[in-house]
Amino acid sequence: MSYVQGLKCRECGRETGLAAVHVCEFCFGPLEVRYDYDAMAGNVTHASIAAGPPTIWRYADLLPELPGTDPADRVDLGAGFTPLVPAPRLGAALGLEDLWLKNDTVNPTWSFKDRVVSVALTAARALGFDTAACASTGNLAHSVAAHAAGSGMSAYVFIPSDLETAKVQAAAVYGQHLVAVKGNYDDVNRLCAEVAGEYGWAFVNVNVRPYYAEGSKTIGFEIAEQLGWRLPDHVVAPMASGSMLTKIDKGFTELTRLELVAAAPWKVSGAQATGCSPIARAHKDGSGVVRPVRPDTIAKSLAIGDPADGYYALDAVERTGGAMEDVSDTEIVDAIQLLARTEGLFAETAGGVTVAVLRKLAAQGRIEPSERTVAVISGVGLKTLDAVADRVGPAFTINAGLDDFTAALSLSARAETPGR
Amino acid sequence: MSYVQGLKCRECGRETGLAAVHVCEFCFGPLEVRYDYDAMAGNVTHASIAAGPPTIWRYADLLPELPGTDPADRVDLGAGFTPLVPAPRLGAALGLEDLWLKNDTVNPTWSFKDRVVSVALTAARALGFDTAACASTGNLAHSVAAHAAGSGMSAYVFIPSDLETAKVQAAAVYGQHLVAVKGNYDDVNRLCAEVAGEYGWAFVNVNVRPYYAEGSKTIGFEIAEQLGWRLPDHVVAPMASGSMLTKIDKGFTELTRLELVAAAPWKVSGAQATGCSPIARAHKDGSGVVRPVRPDTIAKSLAIGDPADGYYALDAVERTGGAMEDVSDTEIVDAIQLLARTEGLFAETAGGVTVAVLRKLAAQGRIEPSERTVAVISGVGLKTLDAVADRVGPAFTINAGLDDFTAALSLSARAETPGR
Repeated sequence: MSYVQGLKCRECGRETGLAAVHVCEFCFGPLEVRYDYDAMAGNVTHASIAAGPPTIWRYADLLPELPGTDPADRVDLGAGFTPLVPAPRLGAALGLEDLWLKNDTVNPTWSFKDRVVSVALTAARALGFDTAACASTGNLAHSVAAHAAGSGMSAYVFIPSDLETAKVQAAAVYGQHLVAVKGNYDDVNRLCAEVAGEYGWAFVNVNVRPYYAEGSKTIGFEIAEQLGWRLPDHVVAPMASGSMLTKIDKGFTELTRLELVAAAPWKVSGAQATGCSPIARAHKDGSGVVRPVRPDTIAKSLAIGDPADGYYALDAVERTGGAMEDVSDTEIVDAIQLLARTEGLFAETAGGVTVAVLRKLAAQGRIEPSERTVAVISGVGLKTLDAVADRVGPAFTINAGLDDFTAALSLSARAETPGR
Repeated sequence: MSYVQGLKCRECGRETGLAAVHVCEFCFGPLEVRYDYDAMAGNVTHASIAAGPPTIWRYADLLPELPGTDPADRVDLGAGFTPLVPAPRLGAALGLEDLWLKNDTVNPTWSFKDRVVSVALTAARALGFDTAACASTGNLAHSVAAHAAGSGMSAYVFIPSDLETAKVQAAAVYGQHLVAVKGNYDDVNRLCAEVAGEYGWAFVNVNVRPYYAEGSKTIGFEIAEQLGWRLPDHVVAPMASGSMLTKIDKGFTELTRLELVAAAPWKVSGAQATGCSPIARAHKDGSGVVRPVRPDTIAKSLAIGDPADGYYALDAVERTGGAMEDVSDTEIVDAIQLLARTEGLFAETAGGVTVAVLRKLAAQGRIEPSERTVAVISGVGLKTLDAVADRVGPAFTINAGLDDFTAALSLSARAETPGR
C-alpha cells in the first residue's frame, strides 16, 4: 500500500493532490510530498524494510510512490543501498575517531543522482509521462539518460554546448536525445523552464521536483540502517541546491517519528566550494541571506549559483547545531588525494569538497574527535579526472630490465630520505 | 574457523602447505587452494552466509583466508555482492526470455578485479607481506593501488609507459608506486617475473596467484544466492587469462557439493575479442591447442596473448556443454551501445565483448530463448570512453531559445520519418 497523501506547500501549508507540479499556486512556495505517518506506525518496521530489495526501494513506504504503482513498473536500475564503510585511516589523518564514508560512487551511473532520478521517473511514469527531461552539466544528465534508456522511456537532456567531451560522450552513450545549448548552465536552465511549460514532459528538477527531492532521504535511511538502526552524531554532505542535506535531515526525523531509531540528537553540516558558496556564506556571515553568485570552481557538479533549497539547508544546519564551510579548489584536490591515499576511494570534485570541509571542521573543533561522523561521497573520480591530472603520475619511468628497476628504486629511496 | 588446508597441484595432485608459491615444484603445474569440504558440510549454510557482510567476505568460509585471520585484518574495500539485475529489454533485442546481468561495474574501483585483489592481498598480509605488486594495463593496477592505499600496505604497480594518460592518472591518484616501463605488456610482465624473484613482494598474479584466482568464485556464489539459491542455466563470461570463467564453474561445483543449491546442469560460455582470441580459437577449430597471439583489439583489459588458464577454460566450457565465440572491434562497440540503450548500463570494452558474444550465441541458437542466462559485465565504461568517442554525441546544437528548440525538434522528427 502507499502512504502518500498528496502535496503540501512548505511555506503556506496549503494542500493539493498528487500531480506534476512543484510550486504552490497560492504563494509560489515549493511543494513537498505529504505522507500518512500515523498509518505507517506498526506497519513500516525494521523487518518490513529488511524484506525489501537491496536498493532505495526497500524504503518504498517512505517514498512518493503513487497509490497502485506495481513494483515491476518502477524506473529502477538498482540505485542505493550503497556501502557505509569505516574510514579509520582518513579519520586518523583528521583526528576523528569514528569516521564513516557513505560511498555513493557505486550507484548505477556512479553518482547519488540515481536515487533522485529513480524516484522522480517512477512517479512521472505513474503520473502518465512517457518522456523525461532535465538540464544538467554532468551527473544528472548521465542518470536521466540511463534510467530512461533502461525503462523504455524517452529523454531530452539539455547540456551547455561547451561541456567537456568526456561528459557528453558518457551521457550520449545511452542513446537518448542530448540537446547541446549555446550558453552557460543558467541559459540552459532558463530554456528548460520554457520547454517544460510548452511540452508535456517530466522535467526531473522542475515539474516533478517534489518527488525527485524525496529520493535523497534514502541516504539518511541507509546510514541509520547500516549503523544498526542508530543515528550518527554528525553527517557532512555537499551542497549544490542544498536539497540533499535537508532530505538527510528529513529522513532522520521520519525514522525517529516512526520509532525505527531511538530519539537522539544529530547534526548535519554542509560543504561548498568557495567559488560557489552562496549557502555557506549566508551561514558564516550571520546574515542568513542567500545571495546568488556566478560560480567559479572546479566542483562543477555543485556549481549552482542560485540554490533552490538554500534557506531550508540553513535551517537544517542551524536547527541541528551543525556547521557550514567552504574550501578552495586547491583544498578540494588535496582532499581528493587524501581520501584516495588513506581509504582507496577515488571521488569526484564534489567528494573532494566534502572531505576538505570535513577536514576544516575537524581542525576547527566543530566536529569532536569522538563524534560518530558520516561523510557523503556523492560521485566517482573517473568523471572528473582533469582535477588531479597535473598532480599525479608514475613515480619513475624505466627500461624493461631488473637492473634498471633496482637502480631507479635506490635512487628514489635516496630522494625520499629525510635531510637530503 | 578456516577450512583451508593447503595448496595442491592441478596437474600432478601433489599437496603443499600455504605459502606464497604458485607453481608445483615437482611438475611446474599451477597450484590451487585445497579446502576441507567435509568439515564445511552443515556448518556452511544459507543462514551462515546471510549473516555475513554484503561483500565477497560473506563467503569467507569458501575463500582462502588463512587460519587465524581476524576479519578486521582483511584487505577489504567492500568488493562484491554486486547487483544481479534482470535485462528484459536487452533480452528482447537478442531473443532471450530470461536474461540477467551481473553488474560488476559497481565495485570499489569499478571492475571485478576488486574481488581477486581483496582476496589476494588478504592472504598476502596473513602470509607476512607488507608490499603488493602487479603488472597491469588498467583495472588491476587501479584495484591493487586502491586496496594497498586503503589498508596501509605499500604497492608497486608496473605499467607500460605508453598507457593512456587517463588510466595512468586513475591508478596514480592512490599515491602508490607507479612504475612506467618502456615496452609492451609482455615486456612489463617479464620484468615483473624477475622482480618477483628478487624482492620479497606479493605479486598478485604471480606468487599469490592461487589465492587471487579464488576471488572470482564469488561471482558464481552471488549469482546463485541472488537467484534464490538456484543455479542459472547458462553464464557468459569474458576471457582474458580464462581464470574467471573456470572459477565461476568451480563456485557452482562447490555449492552443489555442499548442497547449498539443488544439483542441476549449468553451462559456462566464454567471450573473447577476435583480435585476441587464443582460447576461443582453440575451441572453434577443434584443435584444443591454445596458440599464443599478439593482441590487437580495443578490448585491452582482455588482451592476454598467452592465457595462463586457457586449457582449464576449454575444459570447463566443453565439460558443461557451453560455447566460445569471438567478436570484432565493431561488434564490441555496437554491443556497448546496445547494452546502454536497452538497460541503461555503460560497460567497458570487456562488457561489450561479453554482450556481443551473447548476441552471437543467441543468434546461432547455442543459447536457447528459455535458458536462464547471466552475462557478466566486468567493468565500467567510464574507463574506456575512447571506444565510443566517434559514435555518440548531441542530437543537435541550438541557441538558448524556445523557438530554436522547437525548430530543431521538428527538423529532427522529419529526418527520422521513414521514407524521407
